Amino acid sequence: MLIHRTEIRVEWGDCDPLGIVFFPRYFEYFDACTNALFLRALGFPKVQMLRHYQIAGIPLVQASCNFIVPSSFGDVVAVDSCVTEWGDSSFSLRHKLFRGTTLAVEGLEKRVWTVRHPGDTSKIKGHPVPKEVKEKFL
Amino acid sequence: MLIHRTEIRVEWGDCDPLGIVFFPRYFEYFDACTNALFLRALGFPKVQMLRHYQIAGIPLVQASCNFIVPSSFGDVVAVDSCVTEWGDSSFSLRHKLFRGTTLAVEGLEKRVWTVRHPGDTSKIKGHPVPKEVKEKFL
Amino acid sequence: MLIHRTEIRVEWGDCDPLGIVFFPRYFEYFDACTNALFLRALGFPKVQMLRHYQIAGIPLVQASCNFIVPSSFGDVVAVDSCVTEWGDSSFSLRHKLFRGTTLAVEGLEKRVWTVRHPGDTSKIKGHPVPKEVKEKFL
Amino acid sequence: MLIHRTEIRVEWGDCDPLGIVFFPRYFEYFDACTNALFLRALGFPKVQMLRHYQIAGIPLVQASCNFIVPSSFGDVVAVDSCVTEWGDSSFSLRHKLFRGTTLAVEGLEKRVWTVRHPGDTSKIKGHPVPKEVKEKFL
Repeated sequence: MLIHRTEIRVEWGDCDPLGIVFFPRYFEYFDACTNALFLRALGFPKVQMLRHYQIAGIPLVQASCNFIVPSSFGDVVAVDSCVTEWGDSSFSLRHKLFRGTTLAVEGLEKRVWTVRHPGDTSKIKGHPVPKEVKEKFL
Repeated sequence: MLIHRTEIRVEWGDCDPLGIVFFPRYFEYFDACTNALFLRALGFPKVQMLRHYQIAGIPLVQASCNFIVPSSFGDVVAVDSCVTEWGDSSFSLRHKLFRGTTLAVEGLEKRVWTVRHPGDTSKIKGHPVPKEVKEKFL
Repeated sequence: MLIHRTEIRVEWGDCDPLGIVFFPRYFEYFDACTNALFLRALGFPKVQMLRHYQIAGIPLVQASCNFIVPSSFGDVVAVDSCVTEWGDSSFSLRHKLFRGTTLAVEGLEKRVWTVRHPGDTSKIKGHPVPKEVKEKFL
Repeated sequence: MLIHRTEIRVEWGDCDPLGIVFFPRYFEYFDACTNALFLRALGFPKVQMLRHYQIAGIPLVQASCNFIVPSSFGDVVAVDSCVTEWGDSSFSLRHKLFRGTTLAVEGLEKRVWTVRHPGDTSKIKGHPVPKEVKEKFL
């Protein structure tokens, strides 16, 4: 199973008046980590991924995080990201954010491989994930 | 049980290249809704709540969302927020975001009532939620 | 000259470890205020404005702010927004953010009325602002 | 004059429905670049900088940007940052964001070296920048 590690420097602007990361920022970090994982697996960035597979995006149907240990500005954290399960058009990811060797945040995402609706391009709908895509995450 | 409704206008800058709300923004919305619920229950805004109860904040230990129907810029959505459970120092909240009568996003939060660590004010620790606070959410 | 006032509650998540609004948030506030001004002037929200005038958006070529007095979470501020100058395809806006009667932040924006490039829809280009649009800001 | 280069990958979540960077994100990028420049010059991250010099922060009194060429998700841009002028307690910075060799955005910041007000620690005030700090940016 392909695990991709992303390093993130926690910025001043990511932190709240308590001096710790404002929790929605972790979801932003993990979204970026998912993109970095796909870049690593597929070999091209998201903009080309959308074109190549003619998809609209990989929006989420579910996201959750456990916040175990807080982080603060200046901290450099590492996130290990992987796809944990492939459905037909949906798939699940796990992100583990470490401060040193301490697991600080664990995040889960469930996403859908979506295309523009043929009859109404302002709408999107699920589409089976190509087998060749899934194989690149082994 | 006190349920507080917050109206939110989805902004252009909340939306991603798909034209729909970038999902971490929902967690930001819900954080603001939690603050609005506390303002409604306690009668004073967060800055005074921190002073009055001598707490550092109410940071999260867990957050999750189900994204059922997407929203886009210009949409005005309504969020119904309530505390669903009180523990000793922790408590859980539920946010239901509606587009018209359609449940579009459901969010859960678990938070902790925290004070500065007496020995090291750069650290925070859980503290029992005052009974008078809990009673204001009935 | 049409001046539109928007009320904004400063949120916990808008503030940095100093406890004051992280300055890029003011630019977000003002972007929302520009949209609110256009909604007030034209009578329909941005999503319909784009469709009605067949434009891609009104992106910025310049933005600046003077930060005079800081604001913090819980503050309710008022922003007065207006178009100060119409060019052919560009136009300038001014936003004055007040805490009570104190001018706290002043922001300027220069934007362009843009359409998709006919030959390459991934690109955008300036287009004359319709006379009927300009007239609605008088 | 010390010029520090920061590489930034434009993320999906930084972009708006036009598919280009939502402009307040550039101000966030530049804030991070200022911190990276200080880290490079002083040798320790912002959290230690605050402790070492006993300052509250380096908030802005002015910020401006010219947006010359848009960027989109997946783009890797480079930002060259430097202090252009030292006043007594204030100082100015310039950030040049390049896509390849093209200057895409130019940003200016004016900041103040601030300490907690001795009589009221909820307030901040300007303080002369130490000579040893200024010398590290030569």
